[in-house]
Amino acid sequence: MSETMTTRPSRLTTAFDIPRAPGLTWYVQAQQPVGYEVSLTRGLLSPANPALAKAVGADGRSGTRALVVVDRVVDELYGTALRDYFTAWQADVTWLVMPGDEETKALEQVVEVTRAMTEMGILRRTERVVVVGGGVLMDVVGMAASLYRRGAPYVRVPTTLVGQVDAGVGVKTGVNHGTHKNRLGTYFAPEVTLIDPEFLRTVPARHIANGLAEIIKMALIKDADLFRLLEQTVADISSDTLADCGADMSEVVSRAIAGMLDELEPNLWESVLERSVDYGHTFSPSLELRADPPLLHGEAVAVDMAVCVALAAGRQYLSESEAHRALALIAAAGLPLTHPVFTAELLQVGLADAVKHRDGMQRLPLTDGIGSCVFVNDVTAAELARALEYVHAYTDRTDGPGQ
Amino acid sequence: MSETMTTRPSRLTTAFDIPRAPGLTWYVQAQQPVGYEVSLTRGLLSPANPALAKAVGADGRSGTRALVVVDRVVDELYGTALRDYFTAWQADVTWLVMPGDEETKALEQVVEVTRAMTEMGILRRTERVVVVGGGVLMDVVGMAASLYRRGAPYVRVPTTLVGQVDAGVGVKTGVNHGTHKNRLGTYFAPEVTLIDPEFLRTVPARHIANGLAEIIKMALIKDADLFRLLEQTVADISSDTLADCGADMSEVVSRAIAGMLDELEPNLWESVLERSVDYGHTFSPSLELRADPPLLHGEAVAVDMAVCVALAAGRQYLSESEAHRALALIAAAGLPLTHPVFTAELLQVGLADAVKHRDGMQRLPLTDGIGSCVFVNDVTAAELARALEYVHAYTDRTDGPGQ
Repeated sequence: MSETMTTRPSRLTTAFDIPRAPGLTWYVQAQQPVGYEVSLTRGLLSPANPALAKAVGADGRSGTRALVVVDRVVDELYGTALRDYFTAWQADVTWLVMPGDEETKALEQVVEVTRAMTEMGILRRTERVVVVGGGVLMDVVGMAASLYRRGAPYVRVPTTLVGQVDAGVGVKTGVNHGTHKNRLGTYFAPEVTLIDPEFLRTVPARHIANGLAEIIKMALIKDADLFRLLEQTVADISSDTLADCGADMSEVVSRAIAGMLDELEPNLWESVLERSVDYGHTFSPSLELRADPPLLHGEAVAVDMAVCVALAAGRQYLSESEAHRALALIAAAGLPLTHPVFTAELLQVGLADAVKHRDGMQRLPLTDGIGSCVFVNDVTAAELARALEYVHAYTDRTDGPGQ
Repeated sequence: MSETMTTRPSRLTTAFDIPRAPGLTWYVQAQQPVGYEVSLTRGLLSPANPALAKAVGADGRSGTRALVVVDRVVDELYGTALRDYFTAWQADVTWLVMPGDEETKALEQVVEVTRAMTEMGILRRTERVVVVGGGVLMDVVGMAASLYRRGAPYVRVPTTLVGQVDAGVGVKTGVNHGTHKNRLGTYFAPEVTLIDPEFLRTVPARHIANGLAEIIKMALIKDADLFRLLEQTVADISSDTLADCGADMSEVVSRAIAGMLDELEPNLWESVLERSVDYGHTFSPSLELRADPPLLHGEAVAVDMAVCVALAAGRQYLSESEAHRALALIAAAGLPLTHPVFTAELLQVGLADAVKHRDGMQRLPLTDGIGSCVFVNDVTAAELARALEYVHAYTDRTDGPGQ
């Protein structure tokens, strides 16, 4: 295609059909190709590592522009290194520092990002937005990128464990609205997600456990090897061991990401509503909404997974020993199995909400043996109550003296 | 797939690759299939016509639910007929009446629609939103549908000429933001667009001309037969003749829609930024922004097209006679060729904005003979000034005494 002139066919083709009235219908069919990369890299902020520069199109000479949106906490910890990196690569960067907590996950934040894009007059296709932060900021900035001129390219740099194995590697964006989690959003792939475990060194233990919940989920629904590896290593998993990224931790994180992508890729737009990655995400939104003080996402997922383990045990999809191993792993990761507001009544409310989100059916993922998944649509209120009792009986025993 | 249980593979396959650190990359590739229908139908609100009932899944017995968002003016004119129609088909309809003027095309309106969806607890995939109104409401409700739970099905019923030949038949949604037209939006196809020319009977003449601008655009860039047909019939085009939909008017509307879809289908997500349908849409956004009293969209497009005709004449892409025929047709449609604030300076501002939207290049569509399109990237300020003078010289002559 010439840079200055492109001539298009001047005559209509036979494919250009003109139906006659009345009762005419045109059928429009198209396929949107979507592709993106997820890279696990080390030393992302070292000027010797070209990954991030390449992601924004900086070549060390041209003053390529980018909008970098950084989580407030990440900016305090890594802001200098990030600025030095882009300076070294001669990138012309506009900075936007934003909060990244769940309470700020709202449409107003999306608008603030698009306002920054307008102010810098970002080009529509060749200048990037980079988001550096946790899962919330990934979702907010991704949504802004998807809406700005109906879609602008962006790059994800997740800095938390849940961001690196879950929110950062998929294509979902979104914000909460009213009392509804992620009620508004889009499916919009980044060009690339760059994952550096080194960021995890400064992540507090509670937030490491938060990410472990999603890793345990992947193990339970599709990766028995990962489950066993987690059982062997869970006592050693910490900010430092994850950041050091030795063989075991590397395998834990890699298997979690690979499993996630393996589930997402064939169902990127959720045309199939039976999603094994929804495991632990049926009752947890209702719990997250009501828990006070608030739970982290992964903590609510853990409580949800515990009751799903019990549901599976009740149906003999898991043996007693498998169910206990699953509950023990969740607890060993520093995650809760129960919560005071997580009652039989709340379970029913949560399931009813999930049925709406899943278009009228339960489509509840359960483990069918550890490392395999099954979907059920006939869970009753009585069954939910029994499952909850099962979990409470387990925790009463294990929380007792001598444990 | 069983209704109550679906078992998924329990073991990882070899395709499930686990790369080893450091420097590992996963590549995600997927194709999103998108399809929708555009139907030209008569008597859409007659209970005997099943098209709209079918579009929302109503079968006359089941009480299928839908959210119907109606333009305030359309509701006054057709609200009773619309309610009677859905009653006849036993549909359980929630109504939302909204303004549809350009000044209300804002994110707040999108949020109002999503709030109504939440309040009725609309199912995610099998209950529809129907939008009945003009181009603005199409865009607002389409955006709401695209964001709600990351996408809910919707049906378009455009009631204005510009809605029926332009805004209603594509996949774009959007709202204005700050001073920027359509700055935020999505690409999100309706399931079906239902077009009934009968709605045009109540559309004022100025708004008919508004839609004619987009039809003339299609003629100029890709359909010389349509251009000739318009030359022959333009004096007879009115709300009534369009609503009657005789052979000529049917052909005018059908060719405009068919031409539009022929351009959109291969480039639904605008991966190619050379878009012939952008003809007349390069300088017009800046004009629309500044004109006071406000212009209708098509009026600004007409003024933009006039200068593009002159630019083509200046480059000998159009003969003097072709250029005059084009200007004469625009004027005969009741559209303006000039505007007091449409100065040589504004043309430069408009082009600079378009360059940002077109990712750093002009990509300016011009006619290459009537019915064919060419893209140029080297238009200068002096050339813009000359083109403007050309149009003014033409209007000075034709507006003179004896014309």
